[in-house]
Amino acid sequence: MENNDEIFMRRAISLAKRAVGRTCPNPLVGAVIVKDGKIIGEGYHKKAGMPHAEIEAMNSVKNKDDLKGSTIYVNLEPCNHYGKTPPCSLAIEKSGIKRVVMSMLDINEEASGGAEYLSKKGVETVVGVLEDEAKKLNEVFIENITNKKPFFVMKAAMLLNGSIAVRGGVSKWITSEKSRKFSHRLRGIYDAVGVGINTVIMDDPLLTCRTGSYKQPKRIVFDMNLRIPISSTLFSKYSNNVYIVTSVFADGSKKRVLKAMNINLIECDVKNGEFEPQSLCNTLIENGVCSCVIEGGSRTHGYFVKHDLYNKAYLFYAPKISGSYGAFNVVGSDAPLNLKDTKKLKHTGCRKIGEDILIEGYF
Amino acid sequence: MENNDEIFMRRAISLAKRAVGRTCPNPLVGAVIVKDGKIIGEGYHKKAGMPHAEIEAMNSVKNKDDLKGSTIYVNLEPCNHYGKTPPCSLAIEKSGIKRVVMSMLDINEEASGGAEYLSKKGVETVVGVLEDEAKKLNEVFIENITNKKPFFVMKAAMLLNGSIAVRGGVSKWITSEKSRKFSHRLRGIYDAVGVGINTVIMDDPLLTCRTGSYKQPKRIVFDMNLRIPISSTLFSKYSNNVYIVTSVFADGSKKRVLKAMNINLIECDVKNGEFEPQSLCNTLIENGVCSCVIEGGSRTHGYFVKHDLYNKAYLFYAPKISGSYGAFNVVGSDAPLNLKDTKKLKHTGCRKIGEDILIEGYF
Repeated sequence: MENNDEIFMRRAISLAKRAVGRTCPNPLVGAVIVKDGKIIGEGYHKKAGMPHAEIEAMNSVKNKDDLKGSTIYVNLEPCNHYGKTPPCSLAIEKSGIKRVVMSMLDINEEASGGAEYLSKKGVETVVGVLEDEAKKLNEVFIENITNKKPFFVMKAAMLLNGSIAVRGGVSKWITSEKSRKFSHRLRGIYDAVGVGINTVIMDDPLLTCRTGSYKQPKRIVFDMNLRIPISSTLFSKYSNNVYIVTSVFADGSKKRVLKAMNINLIECDVKNGEFEPQSLCNTLIENGVCSCVIEGGSRTHGYFVKHDLYNKAYLFYAPKISGSYGAFNVVGSDAPLNLKDTKKLKHTGCRKIGEDILIEGYF
Repeated sequence: MENNDEIFMRRAISLAKRAVGRTCPNPLVGAVIVKDGKIIGEGYHKKAGMPHAEIEAMNSVKNKDDLKGSTIYVNLEPCNHYGKTPPCSLAIEKSGIKRVVMSMLDINEEASGGAEYLSKKGVETVVGVLEDEAKKLNEVFIENITNKKPFFVMKAAMLLNGSIAVRGGVSKWITSEKSRKFSHRLRGIYDAVGVGINTVIMDDPLLTCRTGSYKQPKRIVFDMNLRIPISSTLFSKYSNNVYIVTSVFADGSKKRVLKAMNINLIECDVKNGEFEPQSLCNTLIENGVCSCVIEGGSRTHGYFVKHDLYNKAYLFYAPKISGSYGAFNVVGSDAPLNLKDTKKLKHTGCRKIGEDILIEGYF
């Protein structure tokens, strides 16, 4: 049985989830205010620049006097700094809330300190309620702060032997409609979707999110030499959210054409004939990409696997198998010489999605 | 709720399973004799040449008078011919059993006809109780009779991207001990285990069943040019159940050495530089291989996939991934040009075996 603190915190977490994919570079935060065992206020952080969850929750209480003596549940430590908004710690102190229950402390040094501040001011603070759930909820934010890089998600649809395309590059459609719908949801959940230039040239995808009420993702193409065709389907819709990652050496006239088309060009450092990984991470973060689902192809997955950039994987296996000679394997980079140098996944799970099988896990 | 016929038939099927891997070329059959709602006799077919299940069950009834007016449940139609043993139909008729409940008719024309015979003699016959379960139980036998070939099972341990070995061929151990134990059980369940000559040269396996109380499988090496090292570990134990499939063109002196070592040599026709599939099936059936789990490597799986020889797959995925260039893919044969030419699997399922993921399915 869950205790009351856990029940109200679960509610706060479920409120936080309503903004999935919309809060970058901020975390997902929900808040619930409880008095005499009843919820009197709720709120969540909707978008960077909008009020924090604690403020939303306090604002939802009509009679501010009710806040006196209440408890606030929030899945992340209230901020303690003047950012785009004033510190929540101060607002909580002034409101008369007497108890603050948090899942976890803020790992962002700049904003942290709210718990300590409130404690010093005589407010009771509790940390660690549903901490694991809260960390999973904010895995993107934690990766951003801890490793100064986007949270990269590997998504691939393949045959049981790892081929993502047969000879000649045909890949439509390896998996079923159900799996493809699921993939569209991933585009809505993460900030961006990224593909290599070969995928654009061969498959000419649109890369939008075409399911439910999700937001549209930024659409990123990794295209060092600006080989992207001007007539790409990608440009036919929302062209201002297409981002082409290229190099300073790419053709200048093509750059001018693309800029005139309202396409975002991101210049990234090149090393050993490929994008320098840290530069890639920095430029994406600077462009508001806190999380990105990478949909391939082979060479692109190969690059991200090789450089240990992936955080999570969604691997869809169609119930099909074929010879591998001449096919494109999902990971197009050099195999290691030793098994211990393969990349390990943790917390893996498997389930059927229609007739396909989905294996999920964390790198 | 199951009715009585189903309950007793389920018992017959569970008795039949006790002989898994031991009845080739015969089917798995169990029988239960019931009188006044109580089981008075049970039996199952233990091995080719031993009594059939019906006879075992009748023999288990001490007072043969009890058989009069009883019902016998048997998962396959009683045989109606003089084979290694006299027809069961005749024995049932003479015993006074008044009702025969079967899951399915015998698909082996030579032995079938028992139901019709008994019906004509005034015995009540029922066909079709737990038919699906009975067909699954005897999938090996059905494949043998229907397609005149062994039931071939693909077993592979691989990375998530289909590599069964990294560069240089290292494959020990991709999957965990739990998965390997499971694989050992497969060696006990099927008549034989088969590998390509490259696997013998690179991994030098023993290929015995090293778990539980299972029988030892026949161990088959596909070795067209007799490249097998005389010092192979394979020969260190039970060398008389090693079978080398080779060609008439292989080196005669090596053949003489191996024969002197008590190794079974099977000569198979060669076409287009590989074993002719029908000849391979025939020679294996002739050597008492009704079912065979193929453990690779890459080229061997490639051959069996390409020629549509596989019936079932057990694919173990370790929670690891790596680049594919220079690695060995699980299916070492040409990829098709069209997705529709990939091989489809049915009735797939997935589950975790320790930290690995097992995908099962039927071709």
